[in-house]
Amino acid sequence: MASDSLAELTNRLKQFAAVREWDKFHSPKNLAMALVAEAGELAAEFQWLERVESENLTQEQLARVKSEAADVLAYLVRLADRLGFDLIEAANAKVEVNEGRFPVERVRGVASWVG
Amino acid sequence: MASDSLAELTNRLKQFAAVREWDKFHSPKNLAMALVAEAGELAAEFQWLERVESENLTQEQLARVKSEAADVLAYLVRLADRLGFDLIEAANAKVEVNEGRFPVERVRGVASWVG
Amino acid sequence: MASDSLAELTNRLKQFAAVREWDKFHSPKNLAMALVAEAGELAAEFQWLERVESENLTQEQLARVKSEAADVLAYLVRLADRLGFDLIEAANAKVEVNEGRFPVERVRGVASWVG
Amino acid sequence: MASDSLAELTNRLKQFAAVREWDKFHSPKNLAMALVAEAGELAAEFQWLERVESENLTQEQLARVKSEAADVLAYLVRLADRLGFDLIEAANAKVEVNEGRFPVERVRGVASWVG
Repeated sequence: MASDSLAELTNRLKQFAAVREWDKFHSPKNLAMALVAEAGELAAEFQWLERVESENLTQEQLARVKSEAADVLAYLVRLADRLGFDLIEAANAKVEVNEGRFPVERVRGVASWVG
Repeated sequence: MASDSLAELTNRLKQFAAVREWDKFHSPKNLAMALVAEAGELAAEFQWLERVESENLTQEQLARVKSEAADVLAYLVRLADRLGFDLIEAANAKVEVNEGRFPVERVRGVASWVG
Repeated sequence: MASDSLAELTNRLKQFAAVREWDKFHSPKNLAMALVAEAGELAAEFQWLERVESENLTQEQLARVKSEAADVLAYLVRLADRLGFDLIEAANAKVEVNEGRFPVERVRGVASWVG
Repeated sequence: MASDSLAELTNRLKQFAAVREWDKFHSPKNLAMALVAEAGELAAEFQWLERVESENLTQEQLARVKSEAADVLAYLVRLADRLGFDLIEAANAKVEVNEGRFPVERVRGVASWVG
């Protein structure tokens, strides 16, 4: 039973938690905490790599990165589900905000916006 | 130009970075670092909330959470795009692994698997 | 050879890295990334705990928390050492800033300052 | 009233929270969450920097890094205080563990230990 969309993944993960009676652990607060912990594990995969190494991962490194990225997505999907918002919609709304904040002609090629 | 799927969002974000010539900043290492930083901002929204408060966010709190969740998703999508893997596929593969690791009858209602 | 102060710990960790020829991995960027990854591991120890459980850790949980807190401190100490600043001094300077930002009479007992 | 040691900083931060009646927010769970959020802010300072840029911060960048590092240390100190353990002692114990795990002759100059 594979999910081929974010909506299907959302339902699949909801079921996964429900049958295990894990909803009691999945408060929005706890899910946000689990998400940042998984994001930390993802970061750890890259911490000692030089830029060019991160662009040329071994198959073993890539497999670990995919596994950690999956964990981050899972908690993000659960969080949005618990709070009743649509992740794709939220992402599109944010892109529109960022298009206003970062006009192409002002930020092209520079990271001046990071201070 | 809204994206109504993860694939469309991926393309939209790729364009967003490309026209700003930001690809040079978007090495997998840097994207993983930006992702965990955004996950930290998401966690910050919940840090002083009690569980029940996190389950009953104000409209203002929810708006900030959606904005931070959008940032996490954006970097996750960019990372998967740069590394050439499918996020939904990776998530489904991980669910299958977890179904094996956490059999319902063993973990039902308990968090013993956290130690 | 135990260190009984932050200054001694700084030297001990510098030696630890030097004899292993790990300084080449310890750029400030990499140390910051390792630090947030360890902070994520620390957060993970608490992610499914209720507040009261976090205030009454088992000996085993406490041992893991101490181990993760030690990792965070180690990378923080290494980072400050590489960048040439004094952690205690930086912390005291920040407390002074925060005393100005959060006057007692305005913030007593409330978390309004979190938005 | 500056603190010139970790013990004095611990007391100063304890007072800072006590007079603001913030202890109710400072459960170990919440402190761990605040700590990883601050670690994320520290990581954010480095996210778009190349290694060499991170080794040659501008004065403005360094000031921000010191401020974020101070926040991480503050929450780490508060957490250890709330849980009743000595940070320096925990760090020294971990160094001893790591000396056993990473013998010089086996790991010199290599990051093979990261997988």
